[in-house]
Amino acid sequence: MNYYAGIDLGGTKIYGIIINESGEILARDKIKVGENKEIESVIELIEKCYKNALDKSGLKESDIKTIGIAVPSAVNVESGILLNAPNLGWKDVKIGLMLKERLGKPVYTDNDVNMGTFGEYSFGKAKNHKNLYGIFAGTGVGGGYISGGKLERGIGFTAGEVGHLTVKIDGPRCNCGNNGCLEAIAGKIGIINYLKKKVDIKGKQTLLDAISPEWRNGIGSSALRKAIQGKDKLVIKAVNKSAIAIGIACAGIINLIGVDAIIVGGGIIEEMADIYMPIIKSTIKKYSIAGGSDNVEIIQSELGDDAVALGAAWSATRPENIKYLIK
Amino acid sequence: MNYYAGIDLGGTKIYGIIINESGEILARDKIKVGENKEIESVIELIEKCYKNALDKSGLKESDIKTIGIAVPSAVNVESGILLNAPNLGWKDVKIGLMLKERLGKPVYTDNDVNMGTFGEYSFGKAKNHKNLYGIFAGTGVGGGYISGGKLERGIGFTAGEVGHLTVKIDGPRCNCGNNGCLEAIAGKIGIINYLKKKVDIKGKQTLLDAISPEWRNGIGSSALRKAIQGKDKLVIKAVNKSAIAIGIACAGIINLIGVDAIIVGGGIIEEMADIYMPIIKSTIKKYSIAGGSDNVEIIQSELGDDAVALGAAWSATRPENIKYLIK
Repeated sequence: MNYYAGIDLGGTKIYGIIINESGEILARDKIKVGENKEIESVIELIEKCYKNALDKSGLKESDIKTIGIAVPSAVNVESGILLNAPNLGWKDVKIGLMLKERLGKPVYTDNDVNMGTFGEYSFGKAKNHKNLYGIFAGTGVGGGYISGGKLERGIGFTAGEVGHLTVKIDGPRCNCGNNGCLEAIAGKIGIINYLKKKVDIKGKQTLLDAISPEWRNGIGSSALRKAIQGKDKLVIKAVNKSAIAIGIACAGIINLIGVDAIIVGGGIIEEMADIYMPIIKSTIKKYSIAGGSDNVEIIQSELGDDAVALGAAWSATRPENIKYLIK
Repeated sequence: MNYYAGIDLGGTKIYGIIINESGEILARDKIKVGENKEIESVIELIEKCYKNALDKSGLKESDIKTIGIAVPSAVNVESGILLNAPNLGWKDVKIGLMLKERLGKPVYTDNDVNMGTFGEYSFGKAKNHKNLYGIFAGTGVGGGYISGGKLERGIGFTAGEVGHLTVKIDGPRCNCGNNGCLEAIAGKIGIINYLKKKVDIKGKQTLLDAISPEWRNGIGSSALRKAIQGKDKLVIKAVNKSAIAIGIACAGIINLIGVDAIIVGGGIIEEMADIYMPIIKSTIKKYSIAGGSDNVEIIQSELGDDAVALGAAWSATRPENIKYLIK
């Protein structure tokens, strides 16, 4: 039996898994990334996470054939170069090569949300939908596109960047510098900006001042849920706008390219699925032309934290990706 | 040598061509569709157009192997059924079968803009771009998607419906019933609606009252150009908004799926390419994330009226479409 490792590198945590050749997860490990995000230090943490997971699996190092790493950045998968990860403050980092040299295994590198979508396609509820789009909403919004059963990266490695689909010309400012991106309305970034405008400029009230006083600097999905349970009108409206915008983006995907299925997930949707999913589904139906969504499955992700690391580990084993392994 | 016919059925005209097996056009014919759009009458006109083109080509009926027909509607290509063509007032018409019975040849039926995109892919400047999106702007806005060298129709046969991509939540009303569709801003429909709002409600002035007094009911692209040449501020602004919206939709496509090339065409872009193309290109650059458009070719269509009929004629000959011929 062959075994493989998968690593999900985020701005605040590293999540590592070991799988067997059926894709079953044998062990997991999670390590926090602190304030120190220097490349050398983070690479050391990745090694630690990998070795912890390996120890827990009971396997030897020589049992592991390949390592897949998912990073929060567009990636040149051919060269294993992370192009730009604002959450880490990294640009043009040869992470594939660095890990290969550190860990002594062939390394495959790709974008985290691409890998999450591929994980869902390979092992989740979206299995066997060969034309699939994944949309994941948390602080920002990311996605991935499976076309004909293969991950489509795009000529500039930016396919899947649904967070920067313009859904509202002249809409709210996005961190990318443009206005009206999906992320600027539907991500927690967008929700916070909406609340700031209403509270700080228009003088409206929100329960978040009590639930999570530092909400302007970032907020947990569970705090949003609590505010909604407390009937906070502003938060209800902001989350409603977020869900509608996601539904509109999904309908846009159906109108543009006609996928078989869309899988949605990520922190805010997982936490508030009972609110998000009905709005997303009804919005898709309304905005898809000529019944185009009637046969499209709208699936809620259930792999959670495993999706990205699993997608990364599995991708490194796929025949179509062997040419991308840094050996 | 084998020969094939292609028909482009529109709401106001029928355009027919005869091609040889290299895709060279041997003859063309064009017939107006008048007020009478009853199915039987229009089928007669199609037959006439086909036979006129055949006469001009100097070929015999027995030389023609197949007929491809493009219609202004979503199409179930498997059954050759036109689903809904508001320009003709037709719904659920078995046009493939009717033409096959009338003309005695195997018939392939598909959407007109899909066929235009496929024509451009097969013979135009977009040749060899295996991941290609086509956007065509006239009265409305339509498109087509070539994925991996094949036309992608989508599970509900609605792929390519870029005209109904929402680019402005809560934006102008579209004929489809939703708000903020690309078509409602970028098509002539959208341009006219903008002008009506400014002239009829806000009391502003436009040269169109002199150039084309019936502009509220429809307008030629050349009249728009004349108004711009006369420095009509309203028309300049409306066309500018149209071009920006098309650029934003193109950037959206690049961010979502990362195509190799986008081909743009259609009446208003062909007539005002010097205005449209620079705005479209600069908007794409601004709205594409992380340099995603740097290697994407933005191509202006040059096949003009031939594109759709050529795409239809050629599609009927493709191995992947033989199963869709109504025999």
